Amino acid sequence: MQHILIIGAGRSAIALINYLETYATDNQWQVTVVDKDISHIHDQVSSETNIIRLDLFDAARLVKEVRNSNVVVSLLPARLHSVVAKVCVDEGKSLFTASYESEEIKKLEPEVKEKGLLFLNETGLDPGIDHMSAMQILDRIKDKGYDLKAFESFTGGLVAPDSDNNPWHYKFSWNPRNVVVAGQGGTAKFIQEGKYKYIPYNRLFRRTELIEIEGYGKFEGYANRDSLKYIERYNLQGIPTIYRGTLRRPGFCRAWNVFVQLGITDDSYEMMLKDGMTYRDFINSFLYYHPSDSVDTKLYHYMHIDQDSDIIEKLDWLEILNDKPIGLKKATPAQVLEKLLTEKWVLQPDEKDMVVMWHKFLYRVDGEEKDTCLTSSLVVEGQNNIRTAMAKTVGLPLAIAVRLYLEGKIKLTGVHIPTIKEIYEPVLKELKEYGVNFQEKIK
Amino acid sequence: MQHILIIGAGRSAIALINYLETYATDNQWQVTVVDKDISHIHDQVSSETNIIRLDLFDAARLVKEVRNSNVVVSLLPARLHSVVAKVCVDEGKSLFTASYESEEIKKLEPEVKEKGLLFLNETGLDPGIDHMSAMQILDRIKDKGYDLKAFESFTGGLVAPDSDNNPWHYKFSWNPRNVVVAGQGGTAKFIQEGKYKYIPYNRLFRRTELIEIEGYGKFEGYANRDSLKYIERYNLQGIPTIYRGTLRRPGFCRAWNVFVQLGITDDSYEMMLKDGMTYRDFINSFLYYHPSDSVDTKLYHYMHIDQDSDIIEKLDWLEILNDKPIGLKKATPAQVLEKLLTEKWVLQPDEKDMVVMWHKFLYRVDGEEKDTCLTSSLVVEGQNNIRTAMAKTVGLPLAIAVRLYLEGKIKLTGVHIPTIKEIYEPVLKELKEYGVNFQEKIK
Repeated sequence: MQHILIIGAGRSAIALINYLETYATDNQWQVTVVDKDISHIHDQVSSETNIIRLDLFDAARLVKEVRNSNVVVSLLPARLHSVVAKVCVDEGKSLFTASYESEEIKKLEPEVKEKGLLFLNETGLDPGIDHMSAMQILDRIKDKGYDLKAFESFTGGLVAPDSDNNPWHYKFSWNPRNVVVAGQGGTAKFIQEGKYKYIPYNRLFRRTELIEIEGYGKFEGYANRDSLKYIERYNLQGIPTIYRGTLRRPGFCRAWNVFVQLGITDDSYEMMLKDGMTYRDFINSFLYYHPSDSVDTKLYHYMHIDQDSDIIEKLDWLEILNDKPIGLKKATPAQVLEKLLTEKWVLQPDEKDMVVMWHKFLYRVDGEEKDTCLTSSLVVEGQNNIRTAMAKTVGLPLAIAVRLYLEGKIKLTGVHIPTIKEIYEPVLKELKEYGVNFQEKIK
Repeated sequence: MQHILIIGAGRSAIALINYLETYATDNQWQVTVVDKDISHIHDQVSSETNIIRLDLFDAARLVKEVRNSNVVVSLLPARLHSVVAKVCVDEGKSLFTASYESEEIKKLEPEVKEKGLLFLNETGLDPGIDHMSAMQILDRIKDKGYDLKAFESFTGGLVAPDSDNNPWHYKFSWNPRNVVVAGQGGTAKFIQEGKYKYIPYNRLFRRTELIEIEGYGKFEGYANRDSLKYIERYNLQGIPTIYRGTLRRPGFCRAWNVFVQLGITDDSYEMMLKDGMTYRDFINSFLYYHPSDSVDTKLYHYMHIDQDSDIIEKLDWLEILNDKPIGLKKATPAQVLEKLLTEKWVLQPDEKDMVVMWHKFLYRVDGEEKDTCLTSSLVVEGQNNIRTAMAKTVGLPLAIAVRLYLEGKIKLTGVHIPTIKEIYEPVLKELKEYGVNFQEKIK
């Protein structure tokens, strides 16, 4: 009997658990899920699966559960992974996560290797499927000896067309806070035509690129923080153009930029929120004083918004200029904005989200006169507001990797991300059976 | 014999030393100056003054010098004050600085009081003369029982009209780095007509106020970081409008905003500066890629700069689009910009700087039908690029405060800033004799 310990019982955990459950009996696996809050998952998983309430700060209990397991999956927020990683290395257990590999975890590598363990991080959607699907094509281009000129990659968690009923064409399918502060982690860096390029936060949502995916229409992408680190990760030294970004529907970024310019995405200081302060008052705090002009007029003037701009439709729909009390005592501007957006951009029970990924590879085949452009796109729609495309595309790759590892089909040791053929080939192959299928096009 | 120890031998130190020297013989004072670099001050001070080379990290030596003194003045960069303050409190010596009172220094207050010492901070120009000149009028308004409606205060270190020969109407008279990163310490906060207002960095240089000073023409002011903290410091609880800002000549902020928007004032990350990289390449790093458009065209288009805008004259004068190598290997964008500006905005030996301060008080006299507007302005011009108005207005208030303290005319103990009548009255009175004279106007 092999014991799989899953720490964290969020939405992606359910996709992961359900997958492992289908293999559990045949493989003699015992799946155990632990979290602080477990009330919501009982009716989502099989009765064979153990569900245990556990506070991560109860270190003794955590050590005990890890000790009883054969492999550990952590779906906790990224900052908590290092705690789990330390216990895993001490107890000699392999660890799987969907989060970015941190410095702290990378430092454990000698010990992880010495004990013959595998710590596989970044095996969700983004990071995860992006690495695997890009590397599969990049390795193919390399194997054929083509000259790679450019690599661009975009991912977005959006709302499915059927459930898209607001002018932002957006609803939350993951952590709202991360959406509000997106882009604030540092200047965006990439390379274009051999030149390093930098985009500061205040210009990020004005420098977008348009892409089109057959059957789904147009999307716009804004640059992610650091595209440069992917040069090393993907072995693309010397590549003239590398750019990674996030996808939204066209028009989103232009309107979001109003919030950036106003300063209401700032999460670094708490505002003085007087009793009964409304969203209209909140916006007015970021506008100049005028003895008679309305808040609307001041906002449009300050932000150079034309009276017939579609930005106004978006702001009106959010009711961000309404006399509705905020209901918070102390909050950062970003927290006030998040509160409003969380009410507005909520996915209703019967509504579906949508995950979109798009890669572009430009390369020259030896002897040909012009470059070949290969695009590879993925669209996955969710089933409802619990079984989302986001939860599925984060949870499934991790689940598949865990199965392959327990079945001895992945034999790697050390601290890795899934840019290695031994991982991405079988994972991508099986993802196809679950509808996670990339469409390639050459032109 | 009383010993005055001055730590730090920068330009303001010379104004301070020269003042104290005129009183030294009569008062039997021994002035000692210590710094790591003392080569430049020998010919600026009297032969009676001790000059000692001392590295602040030589703790034993620092303790010895402090022990031998009766009072200590620190003109070091603000972050080094806490080291000196700790030694002073241990050795039982009073301390005078022109820097903002830090949390660490404030924490020493019980011990400072217990030992009967005075730690007087913020006694330079800004902070310093701004506190004193504002409080003198604020106390007068309060004493008369007038109803204060608004207080605004602006200060700027600029170039004197005679030496103003560039389209920015600006030259450096203090730390260039602080000018480059000005405004980045956090969102600007103030109160206007009873409402809290916030301006993020990316809008700071577009929300300016115009003021005029007789004989000197127009200036523009942008908001300082936190005007709110002055409510408590100046005892202005409940004031409907409070705003503090920094002065430049009109047009400066609009052009500086191009740098802010581009992202070249960012000091948070190091760029990849290739060998021979020019200022033109540097600017191009922040612009979108285009196969044929010139860097100039892209910049004007990206920043919406009209072909006949005076911003172009300013950029051309800086030669920021020239093919001149930067000559730095690794640097933040702000460091590259600072290098160029330091060459361009340098004060030549025979050139003069200018310090400008402007306060506005709006109040209602009981029984009158409308508000009274009182403005108080100060303009001080320097003599040359060593004896600057900046050095004088920073060094003199400190020197006067030290003299008054040694002569027993200030008897305060504890940690203070010069918002107290016992300090500001005699200091402002004496500053007048040195040409530091405010002009009041009522309308």
